[in-house]
Formats: sequence, structure tokens, C-alpha cells
Amino acid sequence: MLLLEGKSVSKALRAKVKEEIAALSSAVKRVPGLAVILVGEDPASQVYVRNKEKACEEVGITSYSYRLPHDIGQENLIKLIRELNADDRVDGILLQLPLPEGLNTQACLQAIDPRKDVDGLHPENQGRLALGLKALRPCTPAGTLFLLDYYKYDLEGKNCVVLGRSHLVGRPLAMMLNDKTMNATVTMCHSKTRNLKEICRQADFIFLAIGRPRFLTPDMVKEDAVIIDIGINRTEDGLCGDADFKALEGKVAAMTPVPGGIGLMTISQLLENTMQAWKYAMGLIRLEDLA
Amino acid sequence: MLLLEGKSVSKALRAKVKEEIAALSSAVKRVPGLAVILVGEDPASQVYVRNKEKACEEVGITSYSYRLPHDIGQENLIKLIRELNADDRVDGILLQLPLPEGLNTQACLQAIDPRKDVDGLHPENQGRLALGLKALRPCTPAGTLFLLDYYKYDLEGKNCVVLGRSHLVGRPLAMMLNDKTMNATVTMCHSKTRNLKEICRQADFIFLAIGRPRFLTPDMVKEDAVIIDIGINRTEDGLCGDADFKALEGKVAAMTPVPGGIGLMTISQLLENTMQAWKYAMGLIRLEDLA
Repeated sequence: MLLLEGKSVSKALRAKVKEEIAALSSAVKRVPGLAVILVGEDPASQVYVRNKEKACEEVGITSYSYRLPHDIGQENLIKLIRELNADDRVDGILLQLPLPEGLNTQACLQAIDPRKDVDGLHPENQGRLALGLKALRPCTPAGTLFLLDYYKYDLEGKNCVVLGRSHLVGRPLAMMLNDKTMNATVTMCHSKTRNLKEICRQADFIFLAIGRPRFLTPDMVKEDAVIIDIGINRTEDGLCGDADFKALEGKVAAMTPVPGGIGLMTISQLLENTMQAWKYAMGLIRLEDLA
Repeated sequence: MLLLEGKSVSKALRAKVKEEIAALSSAVKRVPGLAVILVGEDPASQVYVRNKEKACEEVGITSYSYRLPHDIGQENLIKLIRELNADDRVDGILLQLPLPEGLNTQACLQAIDPRKDVDGLHPENQGRLALGLKALRPCTPAGTLFLLDYYKYDLEGKNCVVLGRSHLVGRPLAMMLNDKTMNATVTMCHSKTRNLKEICRQADFIFLAIGRPRFLTPDMVKEDAVIIDIGINRTEDGLCGDADFKALEGKVAAMTPVPGGIGLMTISQLLENTMQAWKYAMGLIRLEDLA
């Protein structure tokens, strides 16, 4: 079984981003900037945010941190977002989700300038994605495609099953796989799907994004399947994915580990997106040239 | 076999729209207005546009016609769209597609105010759809769902195959079926799909939107399948759908005819969308209350 290592692929993507920033920044006399907003004290979010800031530093992106109390209030949060929209040092704005109760997530996300929406969650970017136009794309699905491309998988005509239909992962991933650049046949499954086992057993590629620890078991896959595990679950035994890795190991053609798989790709893609937004802001590329 | 008649369903939808407009327009002292733009002389487009204008009249929507020469030029067309965006009598703007060569379809569609985008093709509306938010939705898929609802089909957990991935029909339809309001399991197929016959034979519902005359044949369906034929093809023997209607008749549980099926729903949904846009413009409903 081939282990699809997020570590080496992610390293390759970061090296590319770092190199490109180094090559271009002297000419435009400014490095890319990412504003990271964390509201409240969710421990997992704190870890994510720290990892993102560290990764920025590594590749030459300046990060600007905004740690806000959980009771900041909708208006104040949107006021900050508007200031960052107007701030020329800031190319990307990352609003760490989930937001504490009492804040309207959609209203906050929609306040972000689509050109600085490095998480690809603004309706305009999601719409451009749906229409097959270039856009800032959600980091996890975009990073997933980078990994597949790194391992030279050709998905044209392949049966892909996407488990989970979040706006962050499942739905945009399905749209990207189905697109004319990928040409996969995509089945979108979720909690209401009836014959899931049967559907999965026909899949060449299975993408898991449901947040259920060790959900996918050997009886649900065919031998030559490729398993892309996007789930990150905290259990008593530590982090694990949506696939039962130990049980599946050696029984499929290839699989991503958790941790050390797609999670790393997500952060690397955030760096790539921030660089893309910067290049666009600097007039180095047009909207149609986004990666 | 149940014949899913667009005629009666479409009549029901138009009656509802007519009634609602009559009930509300005296209070707001203005009826809905739809601007219809036709560029060039494509004969099929001329028929479509005339049918749309007639349907408007039938339900109490004022239509404003703009017949433009094929060589109108991008700038002039966008100038007209901007004027219509600012015109308070106009609630909906319909740009009949396809546009003649030399015009940038995306640029023109994106010039339409999303609140007047009754075809649901602006990135903002497509993005809201992808995000599961209320939006002006593309007429054909929205009209298709109205027909399914009229016949009281419950698609939760059902295997749906969508053939075709246009931005007008296939992709938004797949998104809607997969949404939490419908909960269907959706497989998106297209010209690169390898085992199409096998996939279709497992489908409870098949949605055809590929524009290939009589493509779906009895060997590709199971007995209790429901066939929704969205294709409209001009052949030597007249109009026909993507399904081989004669060959399939009696061999599936239900089917829409062509003509007299989804085509009628598309126009009726355009009227519904125009009324929705009018209600929103008049302050009678909020964006979240769009049908």
C-alpha cells in the first residue's frame, strides 16, 4: 500500500510558495500579509491558528494576529474585517471557524473582500468555483487536489465518492472533481445515503469528510481503492481520521494518514492562496490567472 | 407508467404566481417588470424569447423587450444592462443565451445586478446556492424541483444520477438535490464517465441534460426508475428529449415528455423568480425569504 504523505507533498508546496515570494517580493517591495482573526478561546482553534502563523513565517508571509474576546459582538468584528479589507498590507483575511455563539458566521464571511477571502468561503468565490471560473478556492479541497496531482493520479472517468457535504470541504471538492479540468464521476454521499457500503465498494477514490472516527472499514472498499481521509477527530487515543487506518492498511492501494495527511495540505494551500491574493493585489496576475 | 406532465404542473405554478401578483400589486402600486434582452437573430432564441414574453403577460408581469443587432458590441450591451440595473420598473433582467460570437458571456452575466439575476447565473447567486443560502436559482433546475414536489416525490436517500454538468442545469441541479432540504444521494455523470450504463441502472431518478437525442435507452434503466428529461433536441422528426421516450414508455415508473415537460417548467420558474425579485425589491420579503 502506498502511503500518501502529506508531509513531503506539503513541503514541496511550501517550498514552491517560498521561492515564488522570494523571487517576486523585491520587485514589488512588499511581502504578502495574512490577517488571522481568532474569536474566543476554543483550544483546537488556538492550535490551528498558531500553526497557520508559524507556517506563514516559514515561507515569508507576514501574519497579523487578532485575538478577540468571545463577546466582541458582531458589529465590532465586522468593523475590524472592513478595516482589514482596506489595509494595503493585508492580502488575505482568515476568520478562524467556528465562531462563538451569538455571531452570524455568514454575515462575517460575506463582509470579507472576496479578493482577500483566502478560505474561499465568500459566495462570490464559491459561485466562481461552481461556474468553473478561477477563484480563491477553499484550502482543504484545493490542497487535496494538489496532493493527488503530486502523486500523478489521473481521475478522468474514475468513480469518486465524496462522503460529507460541508461548504468547507465536501461540496466544493465534489464540484472541483466534477469539473472539466478533472473529469471525475462524482457521487456525493452523506448521513441520509441509504446504500453507502455498496456505493463505496464501487469507488476508485473515496474522500472522507464527515468527522466520524474510524468510520470507513475494510468491508466498505474494493482492493484497489485510494482513500483520502480528510477527517480529523479527537479521541481518547489521540487524533484519528474518518478511516479505520489500521484495519484498512494493506487492504487498499493507497491511503493518507491522520495526522500527517490532508491536514498539512490545508495549511500549505492557505499559504498558496495568500500568495495568489498578493500577486493579484500587486497586479502581477489577473483574476483569470489564479492558480 | 406515470406521465409527469409539465403542462398541468406549469399551469399550477403560473396560477400561483398570477394570484400572488394580483394580491400584492395594488398595495405596492407597481407590477413586476422583466427586461428581456435578445442579441442577434438565432431562430430558436427568438421563439424562446417570444414564449417568455407571452408567459409574462399571462400572469401580470410587464415585459420590456430589447432586440439588439448581433454586432452591438460588448460595451454597448453592458451599458444597457447597467441602465436596466438602475431602472426601478425592472425587477428581472434576462439575457437570452447563447450570445453571438465576439461577446463575453461571463462579463455580461456578471454585469447584471445579482438581485435582478432571474436566471440565477451570477456568481453571487451560484455561490449562495452552493452554500445552501437562499438565492435566485437557475430556472430549469428550480422548475424541475417544483415538478418533483408537485408529484410528491420524496428524494431523501434516493440514488439520483444527473447526466450533464452545465452551469445552467446539471451542476446547480446536483447541488440542489444534494442539499439538506432534499437529501438525495447524487452522482454527477458526463461524457467522460466510464461505466454510465451500470451507474444509471442503479438510479432511482435519472436527470438528463446532455442534449443528445434519445440517448437513454431501456437497457440503461431499472424498472422502477423515474426519468426527468431536460434535453430539448431539434431533429428531422421534430423536437425530442435525451431519453428514447417511445422505447422507454411503460418500462419505467414515470417519465417527463419532450415537449410538454421540463421546458414549460423553465418558463414558469422564470415568472416565479421575477415575482420573487419584485417582492424583494418592494421590501415585501428579505433575501432569506426567497422561495
